[in-house]
Amino acid sequence: MPAKSPVIVDLKFIPEEVEAALAGAFPDREVINLADAAHERRDLSGIAYAVVWKPAPDLFSRAPDLEVVFSGGAGVDHVLTLPGLPEVPLVRFVDRSLTTRMSEWVVMQCLLHLRQHRAYEALARKHEWRDLIQPEAADVTVGIMGMGVLGQDAARKLATMGFKVIGWSRTKRDVKGIETYDAAGLDAVLARTDFLVGLLPLTAETRGIFNADLFAKLSRRGPFGAPVFINAGRGGSQVEAGILDCLDSGVLAAASLDVFEEEPLSPESRFWDMPNVYVTPHVAAASDVKALFAHVEHQIGRFESGLPLEHVVDKIAGY
Amino acid sequence: MPAKSPVIVDLKFIPEEVEAALAGAFPDREVINLADAAHERRDLSGIAYAVVWKPAPDLFSRAPDLEVVFSGGAGVDHVLTLPGLPEVPLVRFVDRSLTTRMSEWVVMQCLLHLRQHRAYEALARKHEWRDLIQPEAADVTVGIMGMGVLGQDAARKLATMGFKVIGWSRTKRDVKGIETYDAAGLDAVLARTDFLVGLLPLTAETRGIFNADLFAKLSRRGPFGAPVFINAGRGGSQVEAGILDCLDSGVLAAASLDVFEEEPLSPESRFWDMPNVYVTPHVAAASDVKALFAHVEHQIGRFESGLPLEHVVDKIAGY
Ligand SMILES: NC(=O)c1ccc[n+]([C@@H]2O[C@H](COP(=O)([O-])OP(=O)(O)OC[C@H]3O[C@@H](n4cnc5c(N)ncnc54)[C@H](OP(=O)(O)O)[C@@H]3O)[C@@H](O)[C@H]2O)c1
Ligand SMILES: NC(=O)c1ccc[n+]([C@@H]2O[C@H](COP(=O)([O-])OP(=O)(O)OC[C@H]3O[C@@H](n4cnc5c(N)ncnc54)[C@H](OP(=O)(O)O)[C@@H]3O)[C@@H](O)[C@H]2O)c1
Repeated sequence: MPAKSPVIVDLKFIPEEVEAALAGAFPDREVINLADAAHERRDLSGIAYAVVWKPAPDLFSRAPDLEVVFSGGAGVDHVLTLPGLPEVPLVRFVDRSLTTRMSEWVVMQCLLHLRQHRAYEALARKHEWRDLIQPEAADVTVGIMGMGVLGQDAARKLATMGFKVIGWSRTKRDVKGIETYDAAGLDAVLARTDFLVGLLPLTAETRGIFNADLFAKLSRRGPFGAPVFINAGRGGSQVEAGILDCLDSGVLAAASLDVFEEEPLSPESRFWDMPNVYVTPHVAAASDVKALFAHVEHQIGRFESGLPLEHVVDKIAGY
Repeated sequence: MPAKSPVIVDLKFIPEEVEAALAGAFPDREVINLADAAHERRDLSGIAYAVVWKPAPDLFSRAPDLEVVFSGGAGVDHVLTLPGLPEVPLVRFVDRSLTTRMSEWVVMQCLLHLRQHRAYEALARKHEWRDLIQPEAADVTVGIMGMGVLGQDAARKLATMGFKVIGWSRTKRDVKGIETYDAAGLDAVLARTDFLVGLLPLTAETRGIFNADLFAKLSRRGPFGAPVFINAGRGGSQVEAGILDCLDSGVLAAASLDVFEEEPLSPESRFWDMPNVYVTPHVAAASDVKALFAHVEHQIGRFESGLPLEHVVDKIAGY
């Protein structure tokens, strides 16, 4: 049996986390972690696999024989634009833990808005004991744009919590208990949506989709009189000037943003201090590096046994 | 057919909400809302039903022929101590909307602690973009004390969100997918519990149960090194001096409190300002007055057709 191809690892994550996660990973093949200076001049020809996140610009010229490229993240917008990306399958990262974490974030943000958390925090700061009129989850329709792996899991969990949930994606998805729409149904979805959740990949089609024109089409019949925008897809899908305008003018009541046009978010951004905006620093669903290597190992196992790879990116569609 | 008995309403809720909810309620019988001064001298003898929350002290002497008393709330500790409470069935309030609202609150509080919300808010106040090491729900065991209507619904929803959930009640409850314990299993539950959720009624047995001795038995092996206490049952079940001591000494990492020994919570209370405590003013699950009247109507219907009443309080057990 020929020796198994090594795996190149070029992940601009926290180096200690990658190091720790590599202990015990890929037991039957060599790992070439390019963070290790020892590999600086290593010949990478003949190697079939690379796991990458913001890799070195010369990676693909140094490793001309790759057969599969693995993205270190669920989103591949950064990977698809890498110069020299070879024309071989690109596999993105899909993992139970990543999905669960995203749904934790989405459900928590929807509940924070529903349960008027910031208003209660303001009362607490004044030591004031007073109750507010409280709608329940069933009074709110959450519209999810992006019904892929993450959108479907969030939809199911939001519905369990009692929210009305509707979903939108390029092609219509069948999700038990959730009303779904395809691309042509966008205006219908928006007209029904009180809380808009963005879980879209960044592609040519989704760039800038969350803009003032779109927000103006959202429902104003919800219990809070104006809609809420919640985004954990990619910052490139949102137009932040439009979000700010809509928050200022009341077209939007509030927002929760985990992703931004430029990351890290500038310390000058108004979002940090707005009383009706929750900001988190792109942490809605961090990639667990151990789980990433387990996923890559599993896919290499399939590939080498002649089974089709899973989670292969459609490079034309861009996700 | 004899005329149907009127219903006495004596609810110290927001008067306008009661008024509004009465429109259309009990279409086939008279309603005597004691908030209405017109009924001040009304003869209440011969009347079979009363719906009460903090009723007038002379209510039960004025209405000596009650056959069923309905509590305006899910908890009946206040009702059971009313002087002159007649020895007839006492029915407590159980309702889908109340249950759903409680689970919204419980799940939100568990997520706030899991997702280190206050720590991210502190970073946002400094305009600082930085991620924290983030455990996932599956790393946390939520122990629920009180596995009745509310505890079981919260357990199911927390489990859907990915938390490990265990439950404790006087008698062992079978809940699909949840490990449950009976009264004798308390120490075993505490030793496994990272987030402790209180959903107990206030009775002679549960008064002061959440005290420093109990907190000292909670797990310290969870991802945050110290346990979190979350209470939405009744304030009389908690010893606030003990909670404060345990928060000060690190026996507890954090808390979420919706109920207090004395309500409203004093403006002098330290809880209001503690960075690791969430305070809400007994709003976890407000009674929806419309739903309350629908429930009372439904139970009267059963009673008059000879069916057994549901949700009858065990006056010896105290809930
Ligand atoms: N903030 C974070 O921490 C974090 C973490 C992980 C991922 N993410 C982001 O979340 C995104 C979604 O992840 P996922 O795993 O759910 O991806 P996915 O499974 O590929 O799902 C993408 C969804 O978006 C829909 N979509 C794509 N382009 C569209 C268009 N032009 N119009 C309408 N719908 C469109 C897809 O439609 P079809 O169903 O028709 O294909 C699909 O439903 C990732 O791409 C990544 O950018 C963020
Ligand atoms: N904060 C709010 O807004 C709010 C709103 C509504 C209700 N509440 C409170 O929530 C409480 C629970 O409501 P619920 O509808 O779930 O009540 P429930 O259905 O009567 O359930 C009570 C649970 O507590 C358990 N329990 C009672 N005494 C016990 C003891 N001495 N030792 C161990 N377990 C004991 C019961 O055990 P068994 O299963 O063996 O009977 C049962 O599992 C209410 O009593 C009320 O005080 C608060």
